[in-house]
Amino acid sequence: MARTIQSLERAAAMLRLLAGGERRLGLSDVASALGLAKGTAHGILRTLQQEGFVEQDPASGRYQLGAELLRLGNSYLDVHELRARALVWADDLARSSGESVYLGVLHQQGVLIIHHVFRPDDSRQVLEVGAMQPLHSTALGKVLCAYDPVAHSEVTETEREAFTPHTVTGLGEFEELLDLTRARGWAADVEETWEGVASVAAPIHDRRRMPVGAVGITGAVERVREGGELSAQLVAAVRDCARAVSRDLGAGRF
Amino acid sequence: MARTIQSLERAAAMLRLLAGGERRLGLSDVASALGLAKGTAHGILRTLQQEGFVEQDPASGRYQLGAELLRLGNSYLDVHELRARALVWADDLARSSGESVYLGVLHQQGVLIIHHVFRPDDSRQVLEVGAMQPLHSTALGKVLCAYDPVAHSEVTETEREAFTPHTVTGLGEFEELLDLTRARGWAADVEETWEGVASVAAPIHDRRRMPVGAVGITGAVERVREGGELSAQLVAAVRDCARAVSRDLGAGRF
Repeated sequence: MARTIQSLERAAAMLRLLAGGERRLGLSDVASALGLAKGTAHGILRTLQQEGFVEQDPASGRYQLGAELLRLGNSYLDVHELRARALVWADDLARSSGESVYLGVLHQQGVLIIHHVFRPDDSRQVLEVGAMQPLHSTALGKVLCAYDPVAHSEVTETEREAFTPHTVTGLGEFEELLDLTRARGWAADVEETWEGVASVAAPIHDRRRMPVGAVGITGAVERVREGGELSAQLVAAVRDCARAVSRDLGAGRF
Repeated sequence: MARTIQSLERAAAMLRLLAGGERRLGLSDVASALGLAKGTAHGILRTLQQEGFVEQDPASGRYQLGAELLRLGNSYLDVHELRARALVWADDLARSSGESVYLGVLHQQGVLIIHHVFRPDDSRQVLEVGAMQPLHSTALGKVLCAYDPVAHSEVTETEREAFTPHTVTGLGEFEELLDLTRARGWAADVEETWEGVASVAAPIHDRRRMPVGAVGITGAVERVREGGELSAQLVAAVRDCARAVSRDLGAGRF
């Protein structure tokens, strides 16, 4: 029953390789990174190229990710029920909080951003849909770890990297943070991932009361924190949004 | 030399199947759509699921696209040189034109949107990065057909669908449009794809003078057209932007 297909696993490993680090690699680089014979690697790359998952630079002959991944990634967003239900609520949250809003789900060992509403001012901002955030230091990540057992085991089984002097890396202290998150129903990140940036996030549950994602706001620590405490108004706005999306997904009111 | 890997081709076909039409399919649907035995289809789906390319709904057992595609699609954007060079210029074009800006490249039989700057007002707009637009009726698509021989053969080898009464579907008339596009260096779409919507686009060339994409603005026909003619100011702004990006990519000035 556990039979999987080796060439497919190798192809997925190649795409992951091209998605990280160097991003433009020659045939020999790919073959040696994955411990494959050149002929084997070439057959997989050629097929991936034919299907649009990989492109080859005509000048250098190096391989990079292909456009078909963008098209399929967009289709993934279209089909995502949580995202579809959350769109309007996230817009409202950005407007009422004045901060940027992120919607995240557990993916691999991190938080995958599936929706991002810009802070409603005229500043230049970079869209982060499709980007990954760490589980142990962000507000979205802590919410997922507190409510989703799979996220919890992902984060406790690996080392927690210190991004700033405020990042909590010790397991005992981190578990206390998760207890606090469950006790009050939301999580925060005060300069634990990015200097000068703070976030607040709350969990989204579906009709089976399963934690399916998290929604939160992110902004300058000077705005998100007021007199040493996180702004109660922002916390309330985030929790209202999370409850509204959960209700839309069919979660019970109690 | 033409050897490709069958299980990979089948996996790609499954992802395309899940990206269109139904989007949530059971094992039997997938197997019969692709003419595969159920056991074969199951082995591929299981591997795709293990790699995060496919997700299975726990309640219905149906398959849908997985989150890894979004992550990889985002990495594709990060590595895309045209997009990286065009970001600032596209922002400037949106500001100067007051309209939304799209950057597109040829992908399969259409235009893949790789960057989208919202119209600079406070209206609610849907991000279209990763979406596809038709080649024969949009301004971006006509530019690609006029300058890229591959796009040209894609569009002439298939039937051109009429989206509105203004869509040009006849081959002779379409070729005349492409001649006009090459003669004046830009293309338009006046309600040929969407009622009430008009676009203007111009080609982007790289250091080898190859057409690598197109940039354009899209807006209400009442704004984009002035007294029966396309706004000369908008056309100039789009062409300025396309020239600036081309220069940034190393294209010669002449």
